[in-house]
Amino acid sequence: MKTDRAIVLLSGGIDSSTTLAIAKSQGKQLTVVTFDYGQRHKCEINAARNIAGSLNVEDHVMVKIDLRQFGNSALTAPIKVPKGRSAREIGTGIPITYVPARNTIFLAYALALAEARQANKIFIGANAVDYSGYPDCRPEFIQAFEKMANLATKAGIEGNGIAIEAPLTNFSKAEIIKLGTELKLDYSLTFSCYDPIEDGLSCGECDSCLIRKRGFAESGVTDPTRYVIKLKV
Amino acid sequence: MKTDRAIVLLSGGIDSSTTLAIAKSQGKQLTVVTFDYGQRHKCEINAARNIAGSLNVEDHVMVKIDLRQFGNSALTAPIKVPKGRSAREIGTGIPITYVPARNTIFLAYALALAEARQANKIFIGANAVDYSGYPDCRPEFIQAFEKMANLATKAGIEGNGIAIEAPLTNFSKAEIIKLGTELKLDYSLTFSCYDPIEDGLSCGECDSCLIRKRGFAESGVTDPTRYVIKLKV
Repeated sequence: MKTDRAIVLLSGGIDSSTTLAIAKSQGKQLTVVTFDYGQRHKCEINAARNIAGSLNVEDHVMVKIDLRQFGNSALTAPIKVPKGRSAREIGTGIPITYVPARNTIFLAYALALAEARQANKIFIGANAVDYSGYPDCRPEFIQAFEKMANLATKAGIEGNGIAIEAPLTNFSKAEIIKLGTELKLDYSLTFSCYDPIEDGLSCGECDSCLIRKRGFAESGVTDPTRYVIKLKV
Repeated sequence: MKTDRAIVLLSGGIDSSTTLAIAKSQGKQLTVVTFDYGQRHKCEINAARNIAGSLNVEDHVMVKIDLRQFGNSALTAPIKVPKGRSAREIGTGIPITYVPARNTIFLAYALALAEARQANKIFIGANAVDYSGYPDCRPEFIQAFEKMANLATKAGIEGNGIAIEAPLTNFSKAEIIKLGTELKLDYSLTFSCYDPIEDGLSCGECDSCLIRKRGFAESGVTDPTRYVIKLKV
């Protein structure tokens, strides 16, 4: 069993890109996986390609999965993305942009890839601070997945086991941005908007844009993002 | 929350087809899900369609997923399927036909579908007796998945929770066949072979054919399967 390879889930947003930079800084050999899951915008996928390239990742697997046929989320079905919500509104309840069981599906694929590549770690940029409403971003979910993963796999039964690392779980967005900036991550390559106007141009009003803006403002790092609407946060 | 709908994973083999018959006998509204996961034979998928039809299932979701790009299994990559092995050989170690994290991926999709359809049960035909070598068929895996699923989802956090039912876990193949026969399941529609000669014609020598033959022999039910090789079991 090779013990120096890790799988990293990369969407192209701030959290997963920073998580990739952390894994890279630990000197691991990396296999990066990005999902084309029928999201309404492809900017995320372009961002993931650019970020992986900027960190010299050689093994980048793109997995096409179709969650649109299941419906029930503003990110994959024709439901209106909420705009201009306050920080308090964003932090309350499970948002409409929640994609059912998304992180479970992503981690399940990462687990298959870990078995195939003989990797013993999976990094995910799950964060429980800004997105407290997503049940599958919480540390108790990550721990339960890790336990299940070690009962599900050859690596868990016969090998050294699989660890699920979510290094950003308890970081605020500002702390994440400060950490990534120390690691020389180029945030102009990342993309967060739920409802972009065109490739690389963010709406500036959706929950994800508002959280991103506030994160940069609080971090003291200059925000390199191109927004259409310059709402104050 | 509707509490009378269940998701059933259906491959078209004996175990999942019997599990569907059990769920049906409980009077639930059913959503059946079948995966086209790049397996080398499509007979399974045809069998699944026929079985679901014979049980009057109205909501049958086909999900295409590509595990071939991950490699590392005789069922999805060009590795030779073992033939003519003894019951003892079949029961030892993790077989080459193991697909990494397959049940984890299947259950993750079923979980997404359960959220989308507001179902509160997922039925899976996992069996720990004949396939003791597959880590993700064991009851401890199913229990760990259920625990994780309830931390991952809206249903787990805000609703009535999700139960993962694996009613055949501790049944022998003969017991499964006897139960399905009592439920009037037509086993001539099911398909098990790992290496079929053509649609509906089983090799008769792979582990799956040998387990199937032995199951029918021990159950006392006439085996309706068309095998090329009539190896004694």
